[in-house]
Amino acid sequence: MTVLYNRVALVGLGLIASSMAHAMRRGGLAGEIVGTARSAETRKVAAELGFCDRIVPTAAEAVDGADLVVLAVPVGAMGTIAEEIGPHLAPGATLTDVGSVKRAVVDAVAPHVPEGVTFIPGHPLAGTEHSGPASGFAELFENRWCLLLPPEDADPAKVDRLAALWRAMGSNVDFMDIERHDLVLAVTSHAPHLIAYTMVGVADDLRRVTDQEVIKYSAAGFRDFTRIAASDPTMWRDVFLNNKDATLEILGRFTEELFALQRAIRTGDGDLLFDYFTRTRAIRRSIVEAGQDTAAPDFGRVGTKR
Amino acid sequence: MTVLYNRVALVGLGLIASSMAHAMRRGGLAGEIVGTARSAETRKVAAELGFCDRIVPTAAEAVDGADLVVLAVPVGAMGTIAEEIGPHLAPGATLTDVGSVKRAVVDAVAPHVPEGVTFIPGHPLAGTEHSGPASGFAELFENRWCLLLPPEDADPAKVDRLAALWRAMGSNVDFMDIERHDLVLAVTSHAPHLIAYTMVGVADDLRRVTDQEVIKYSAAGFRDFTRIAASDPTMWRDVFLNNKDATLEILGRFTEELFALQRAIRTGDGDLLFDYFTRTRAIRRSIVEAGQDTAAPDFGRVGTKR
Repeated sequence: MTVLYNRVALVGLGLIASSMAHAMRRGGLAGEIVGTARSAETRKVAAELGFCDRIVPTAAEAVDGADLVVLAVPVGAMGTIAEEIGPHLAPGATLTDVGSVKRAVVDAVAPHVPEGVTFIPGHPLAGTEHSGPASGFAELFENRWCLLLPPEDADPAKVDRLAALWRAMGSNVDFMDIERHDLVLAVTSHAPHLIAYTMVGVADDLRRVTDQEVIKYSAAGFRDFTRIAASDPTMWRDVFLNNKDATLEILGRFTEELFALQRAIRTGDGDLLFDYFTRTRAIRRSIVEAGQDTAAPDFGRVGTKR
Repeated sequence: MTVLYNRVALVGLGLIASSMAHAMRRGGLAGEIVGTARSAETRKVAAELGFCDRIVPTAAEAVDGADLVVLAVPVGAMGTIAEEIGPHLAPGATLTDVGSVKRAVVDAVAPHVPEGVTFIPGHPLAGTEHSGPASGFAELFENRWCLLLPPEDADPAKVDRLAALWRAMGSNVDFMDIERHDLVLAVTSHAPHLIAYTMVGVADDLRRVTDQEVIKYSAAGFRDFTRIAASDPTMWRDVFLNNKDATLEILGRFTEELFALQRAIRTGDGDLLFDYFTRTRAIRRSIVEAGQDTAAPDFGRVGTKR
């Protein structure tokens, strides 16, 4: 139990921030945790759950005297918040964020960071389909990667301390370049999310198949898509709008490939399909071997009784 | 414990057939279970695992004297098997199958069904990403739907008995028309599988992002796709080739919709994206409420430690 920061300010109290609070509490990593959220309802729920030491009504109050400030709001709100808290950040403080897009966040936040404050963008690759202050839990970051993207001139001691916090919360820490981050995440996260949203939307919209049929018979594959497509709408709207180029590039490649497979189906090219499906199976194996998913069949789902 | 069939012949010994054997054993539903598979290796593994009472080398031998014959081979192999066993089917026997496509199976199998044998096509909507005789387990069908598609003139007593077997193995049973089945499954299963295969293939193929990055950072969404894309290549090749029209129709709708969302991203139409993502979230809720998936975050995944 090492206190890494005397006062941590969480701006935004959704899944990520509440999970951080639980994990910091568990590890005794923060002297005090102060939380704030724009919505009074969110603040009320968070206060009731008690994962922060104090809940305050404004971001400016929250960051007062904090040696670590975490921006945990949708990507599109980061700039406004940064502008609001900039004048109130304590000299020597570290500012970080947990946004899923990095170029847009850095461009929006950096101009408001005062001299003497170190901004270290971050992105924990962890989450569930649930959102809000009641959805957090201390184990969310266990064995998940947290990417940190410090500017070249960042104080190494401050970077080490933030990395130590993430490790103490259970994460593995990697460092990455901003542009690379946005491209890699477009592949591993943003494009898959848009595709899942699309497939679920199509199923809902098709007049030839009823919603009830789609829901009843979803276990045949479709339901895996619906989990991803249940993710927070505000967060994901902002991700797509703020990682436009990389997402559209990957979707372009996806469409090209989908057309090739559709053509193979149409022309009856079984060998192409078989080889393709054999190759994708190997990737799954690598992910399980890398400890990033369970080998248990069906994700080891439990509790799906009627 | 009611014996529903005196001798059940399982032709094919993969995930579905081996799970049926385990479930029939558990419930004491079959007097004797006889299994066969084309591959000597599969027969050997199945014999070692011992979930059948007898393993025989040919389908003709397997069906001899059986009052229930289950075709559990890839859809593309159904016709050949039916031709082989036709002359050996016992008068009064029930023949069923577990293929994911129904029109093509009925067209391939029905001509070989002799007078006095009742063919009742079936499709248990259950499975995992694993395949082969060692992947089966008795609980696979619990609370999953099994669709039966009896011809109009089928003996109701025989249909009832097959439905009773599936219920006794844990399934809920529904009856459906062949063409409707192939359309509904194109939405809930076939199109989602092809899309998952495509996304995983794109990620593997992209030269701008390394395989290692894709694997390490897969937890951000991509890994859900890889589970589906790890499904048996032979089975899925045959599904797509044999449900061509419905699958291509749904993929066409999917592409149309994907283009609309891509356009919304490009033009910055946040409202459209937000509304779309809110709608898809509701579908997830319905699936959980219908008992077809767990409400636990991240599918309640466990065991993904390094």
